[in-house]
Amino acid sequence: MTRNANIRDEARQVDVRPPAVILCEPQLGENIGTAARAMANFGLTDLRIVNPRDGWPSEKARAAASRADHVIDKVQVFDSVEAAIADLTFVFATTARSREVPKPVRGPDEAAQKSVSLGVNGLATGYLFGRERWGLNNDEVALADEIVTLPVDPDFASLNIAQAVLVCAYEWRKTATGGALPFRLSPEENPPASKDDVVRFFEHLESALDGVTFFRPVERRPHMVRTLRNIFQKAELTDQEVRALRGVVAALEKRQTRPRKDEETGEA
Amino acid sequence: MTRNANIRDEARQVDVRPPAVILCEPQLGENIGTAARAMANFGLTDLRIVNPRDGWPSEKARAAASRADHVIDKVQVFDSVEAAIADLTFVFATTARSREVPKPVRGPDEAAQKSVSLGVNGLATGYLFGRERWGLNNDEVALADEIVTLPVDPDFASLNIAQAVLVCAYEWRKTATGGALPFRLSPEENPPASKDDVVRFFEHLESALDGVTFFRPVERRPHMVRTLRNIFQKAELTDQEVRALRGVVAALEKRQTRPRKDEETGEA
Repeated sequence: MTRNANIRDEARQVDVRPPAVILCEPQLGENIGTAARAMANFGLTDLRIVNPRDGWPSEKARAAASRADHVIDKVQVFDSVEAAIADLTFVFATTARSREVPKPVRGPDEAAQKSVSLGVNGLATGYLFGRERWGLNNDEVALADEIVTLPVDPDFASLNIAQAVLVCAYEWRKTATGGALPFRLSPEENPPASKDDVVRFFEHLESALDGVTFFRPVERRPHMVRTLRNIFQKAELTDQEVRALRGVVAALEKRQTRPRKDEETGEA
Repeated sequence: MTRNANIRDEARQVDVRPPAVILCEPQLGENIGTAARAMANFGLTDLRIVNPRDGWPSEKARAAASRADHVIDKVQVFDSVEAAIADLTFVFATTARSREVPKPVRGPDEAAQKSVSLGVNGLATGYLFGRERWGLNNDEVALADEIVTLPVDPDFASLNIAQAVLVCAYEWRKTATGGALPFRLSPEENPPASKDDVVRFFEHLESALDGVTFFRPVERRPHMVRTLRNIFQKAELTDQEVRALRGVVAALEKRQTRPRKDEETGEA
């Protein structure tokens, strides 16, 4: 847990009830742990396990969770899927292959929208994940409201449980926070240059280039000036970057008037 | 590789040049392998490694790739990031923490849009991933056009390389295919019921309920009928489901007229 004062508030604040993750008869404690780690990265904490093969608690799960102890500590174990989802109001069954069931099939992004739209009202949703080898059976899928599957390459579909949990959890948090990232390019720390400063830099550069008769033939000057200005406009320069560029031009101007041997090969 | 005739064409067909994934000085072969597996799930095949600590080829990488041999076989090894990205036109640097660089910071979804918009024109893009322990250094970030970071919970940010690759690859494929899933609820296999059939089922149910004087008091009948009809409207019934429901009503009607002892406790 790294706290960082520079983190944007909207990336931290989530006023939406996160979904539960229900693992159905997982075989390996390691998979439970990596699922918990995937959840924790995106703010999910409610992990439920139905009949874990190797029992519970699991030291392998805790080790694989990589410090997601707050998820592991709260794990609930159930002896049936019905019991594990009893308090939820909307359940997604994740499956990697088509089922013979006439139930809506959603992508993780669509599922996240549904989960968040219920979660903003405090309603509890959940994602059901199947066994390592053969997923969920049809009776378990029948307990769910909708099916979730991932937009994988059909010719190489080989996601493990924690990877499927990761993508669902990622989409949930992205939707719940409106895509808020922990950090962005900050206009406070990197104020964009004013147009006045940018134009003065342009004029400085162009006058330096005039000094070395760079613009030849002279009737091409307007076109070449526009080319150069467009290059720097695209860079969306900051205050500090304009100062750096003016320093570069000044240094090159100086070099032209007082060449020194050890600068001959440099590019400033 | 499981080929399935039921897979939808739009989930298979991707006419966009996929991005390269560049791993910078990875320590563990296992992480290279799990990154390759993550890529393969979403149709990425161009994996490049800069100075892998334990050399290349790596049997650990191949084992962890879980059948993504087509990615492992094509891996290219470089001795600098500059060489690894030389043929690309747009590069994202993935970082988990804010940098002191005035460079745009994107989510994986925004990065995917950029990569796809270049990739539809056949232009090569790439995602640069850093070392297990401390990511990319600032010189490496300076080689990239933009920064990508994931919308993790800032209070528990602990994604490994393969997890970050997975989310970026997922967003890329989702964008490139317009969110096409390998399967959806198929209207051909599960044709929705016609309104005529649905209304006839309603009338059948309501007449059966009239037969047992279910609607009491009778002035409440219109309201109760609407309640029942709304329930079944929400279910978006298929042809086959309407037939099943009519069978249920018929069976219950029969039971009312000819009760048998062994049916007394059943709920049909």
